[in-house]
Amino acid sequence: MKIVHYTDVENLSFKEEGANKVRIRWLIGEKDNPPNFYLRMIEVEPGGHTPFHSHSKEHEVFILEGNGKIRDEKGKEYSLREGMVVYVPPREKHQFKNNGEGILKFLCIIPK
Amino acid sequence: MKIVHYTDVENLSFKEEGANKVRIRWLIGEKDNPPNFYLRMIEVEPGGHTPFHSHSKEHEVFILEGNGKIRDEKGKEYSLREGMVVYVPPREKHQFKNNGEGILKFLCIIPK
Repeated sequence: MKIVHYTDVENLSFKEEGANKVRIRWLIGEKDNPPNFYLRMIEVEPGGHTPFHSHSKEHEVFILEGNGKIRDEKGKEYSLREGMVVYVPPREKHQFKNNGEGILKFLCIIPK
Repeated sequence: MKIVHYTDVENLSFKEEGANKVRIRWLIGEKDNPPNFYLRMIEVEPGGHTPFHSHSKEHEVFILEGNGKIRDEKGKEYSLREGMVVYVPPREKHQFKNNGEGILKFLCIIPK
């Protein structure tokens, strides 16, 4: 069993192309060797965004703090706030943006 | 893509044997048909607890609110508070307890 506070996990710059002002903490990652999936915390600064991309597997997201938008594959945007859940199915293009004044903080779970 | 606020997801009684004062919301569940894993929100009332059990696959937990304890397979207890992350490996016995005064609320991700 591993028990840790998220603030004790390194907050890395998220370097994927198309990302701007994004940081990531691997709360449960490769070194924990979970059989099926990883738990990450993503922080997007005001004005920042994740890449507008898709991937072969699902992402599951829970908004912890802040205000932002998610853009879907048709370019339509939906508002996000604390307590909202996003299910992104495999191969569906999407992008998270922070159009608020504070940090947009969310959990993002991905398959291994 | 599915976008929902957690309060719009039904808060069901968690009926597994050994559970007491526990509720569950399937934020991303069977009806969403994700290929790999489900996202649930668990609420434990003061004095309540989840079963002391293990399962064949990992659980990943993020504490959203409240104070509680997790008991490990040797019976040792660890304090939990908002922002804490718990990785429970496959086949490791564990139990969540609410020894605080408010609701203990956490996200729990499990493989499909």
